[in-house]
Amino acid sequence: MIRYRARWIVPITSPPEADGIVAVDGERVAYAGPASAAPPGDEVNLGDVILMPGLINAHCHLELTAMRGFLEDLDFRRWILRLTSARQAVLDRDALLDSARYGIEEGLRAGITTYGDTSDSAVGIQAMREAAVRGIVYQEVFGPDPSQCAKSIADLREKVAGLRYLETPLVRVGVSPHAPYTVSDELFKATASLARELMLPVAVHIAESELESQLVSTASGAFADGLRRRGITVERRAESPIALLDACGVLAARPLLIHCVRVNAADVDRIASSSSSVAHCPVSNAKLGHGVAPLLDLLEAGIPVGLGSDSMASNNRMALLEEARVALLAQRAVSKLCDAPQAADVIELATIAGARALGIDAQVGSLEVGKQADLAAFAIDPAVPIQDPVAALVFSISGARARFVSVAGRVLVRDGELVSPRAGLAERMQSLADALAAWLDSGGEMQGSV
Amino acid sequence: MIRYRARWIVPITSPPEADGIVAVDGERVAYAGPASAAPPGDEVNLGDVILMPGLINAHCHLELTAMRGFLEDLDFRRWILRLTSARQAVLDRDALLDSARYGIEEGLRAGITTYGDTSDSAVGIQAMREAAVRGIVYQEVFGPDPSQCAKSIADLREKVAGLRYLETPLVRVGVSPHAPYTVSDELFKATASLARELMLPVAVHIAESELESQLVSTASGAFADGLRRRGITVERRAESPIALLDACGVLAARPLLIHCVRVNAADVDRIASSSSSVAHCPVSNAKLGHGVAPLLDLLEAGIPVGLGSDSMASNNRMALLEEARVALLAQRAVSKLCDAPQAADVIELATIAGARALGIDAQVGSLEVGKQADLAAFAIDPAVPIQDPVAALVFSISGARARFVSVAGRVLVRDGELVSPRAGLAERMQSLADALAAWLDSGGEMQGSV
Repeated sequence: MIRYRARWIVPITSPPEADGIVAVDGERVAYAGPASAAPPGDEVNLGDVILMPGLINAHCHLELTAMRGFLEDLDFRRWILRLTSARQAVLDRDALLDSARYGIEEGLRAGITTYGDTSDSAVGIQAMREAAVRGIVYQEVFGPDPSQCAKSIADLREKVAGLRYLETPLVRVGVSPHAPYTVSDELFKATASLARELMLPVAVHIAESELESQLVSTASGAFADGLRRRGITVERRAESPIALLDACGVLAARPLLIHCVRVNAADVDRIASSSSSVAHCPVSNAKLGHGVAPLLDLLEAGIPVGLGSDSMASNNRMALLEEARVALLAQRAVSKLCDAPQAADVIELATIAGARALGIDAQVGSLEVGKQADLAAFAIDPAVPIQDPVAALVFSISGARARFVSVAGRVLVRDGELVSPRAGLAERMQSLADALAAWLDSGGEMQGSV
Repeated sequence: MIRYRARWIVPITSPPEADGIVAVDGERVAYAGPASAAPPGDEVNLGDVILMPGLINAHCHLELTAMRGFLEDLDFRRWILRLTSARQAVLDRDALLDSARYGIEEGLRAGITTYGDTSDSAVGIQAMREAAVRGIVYQEVFGPDPSQCAKSIADLREKVAGLRYLETPLVRVGVSPHAPYTVSDELFKATASLARELMLPVAVHIAESELESQLVSTASGAFADGLRRRGITVERRAESPIALLDACGVLAARPLLIHCVRVNAADVDRIASSSSSVAHCPVSNAKLGHGVAPLLDLLEAGIPVGLGSDSMASNNRMALLEEARVALLAQRAVSKLCDAPQAADVIELATIAGARALGIDAQVGSLEVGKQADLAAFAIDPAVPIQDPVAALVFSISGARARFVSVAGRVLVRDGELVSPRAGLAERMQSLADALAAWLDSGGEMQGSV
């Protein structure tokens, strides 16, 4: 038994405790409460920190970490085109794997212990296993042409079969029909059906851009034009992107709905009544000009909402305390409310609600006896007095300074440093950035297939 | 002559340079450009950093730093009441001075070299002199009752006379009629007149809350009710808060207009045609539920806009790179634009445009030969490749990690540490926080005078 002592513990599902202890027995939490009542054990005093459950990043693209800063200030269609063509031209499997490894190292430094990773290459599963972190790798599937559907599904089935051999108690496989502008109705239906057959979790990018809504509800706009140029018939598909998922049976698979910026009251009802969940990505949504998702409405409807960094190509930081802060600020700015959401609400998004959104809240997301010992501790500046540790986490603590991180009891960050950083990774990331820049300089960017 | 070498320099008024040097001769910049063409001198290699002009915080309340976390989730009127009564009851002059000192230490750690400090006690002037930073201390004046006007102005004249003895080449004195809900029309007029007579810079909180707009344009709402309870006659004063300042002659003094969340097209014209400037405080405006100021409209009109942290009671961090990032995100989220403002635009707000807003752009705000050597350098994570240093400053670099800071050539932060931290300050700040909490617990909060 190890006793981790901290100036504050924030268990999430119970009130903060000053001078608290979290006792860990093997991979599980054996106690979380005041030091005065803690069981005996070897004590590690973490000092001036807030100790809490490891943060849960409900949506990221680990393989795209190398693209940070490579796609600034592009409109959404050009952003997708450059991303897609650069990935194909420059990033081979080894590069994508390094990219995922580095994404996890950055996440660990920011106290993130669980990763909801949406991925074309699925390298995230290897990177998560190596790093001993927790997560779900959603294998993406693409195919806007209905005639491709059977082949796409056969490929997906084969990929998933291979990936499931790699599953561990920490890492699971799911599927992700990418988005309405890259997936036909037929492929949505077939993927939902496959997911139910194989009992796989599902994630889907939805209701993100205005272009996507135009494509779905009026068969117009740049996405519609692009598909028509490829000889694909484009007709009105549904009254909204969420209604489309409902009609295609995707909501019946209780998916993780990524973004949900453009949802109306009927859409919120559809999400809630189907017991689907949402990955809220406020920095990405703001930076790409999509807007602010109606977080307060989603929470009011009882929908489990996690917080996602999205990819480093759109964010550009994996720092979930920062993400929580921006979630709160953006929501208050738009709602004109001075007291909603509160700091505790957005810290829940980053912990227990994120766990609920990923369907793993029985294992993680709070400091409770019997749960997995996924922990993160954040340094308190001794000169910054704390009235309320939860408010301090959101407002006063910088997003990337975890002092201590463990997953299932295994220590991954100690004294603010990764216990096992990967040799040579920083240099290889620099080479990848150079290769991307050279590709761009040489006119590599071209019209892609979106 | 000292040559500061950096992986990148970002001069603001000229393009970034890789492997750059800023040469400093005494208190001035003697060279800023590629290392290959730099003049000889003793070289200090700052390493993997972005070296740029020191950041300019166009609006803060240094004396309120001790109140961080003490005023969460209150509506605006209660927020003001608790702040005012706690300041009176708990924070004596020594406490306010420590608070200002700590605010500057926090600002220096975040690369801030200039402080636009709005203050009741004016302790900021002593704190700035001690710390050898640059700034303007705007002495606040209050008085919603027109019958108090003569006394308020006499007091203000006396305070300013005392403060001007403390002015230095780095630190100047200004005046600030606080806000429409605490200042009568008569006092606005008299303060503007005093400022013109004494050639003092003026700052005023304006167009921040909906309550303020209601008071000014319809003589209704909680501020109006509060004033009436004090026996003060409340009538419609103008069509908008900016129109009120115009009518009272305040715009003729070319003030720094703090907030400007609630301004319409006519207000933007009034601000532009009077050559007034704006302090934009996006985090504070969002956190307190006021909304998002129309930054793009203000910039389009050619108005000089600086970036302000506002007080630690509302923000709660003095981290201007973070503030720039939130400025960009909030604006894009509301405007639904993916490419405006750009990273370079918000970095200008934090540097040269902030200098312009404070009227000191001939001295600071860019790396140009002859300007004051106010410098800040931010560490680049070696594992985070940089495509564009300006985008990296906004999106990828955390807000509080200046490696090096100088003001007028004097080094104040070296290797990420304050050169002269004040002994015992952190402990005294903790005591102040404890005293504030005890005051609150003992029922100290009461109806104040706003």
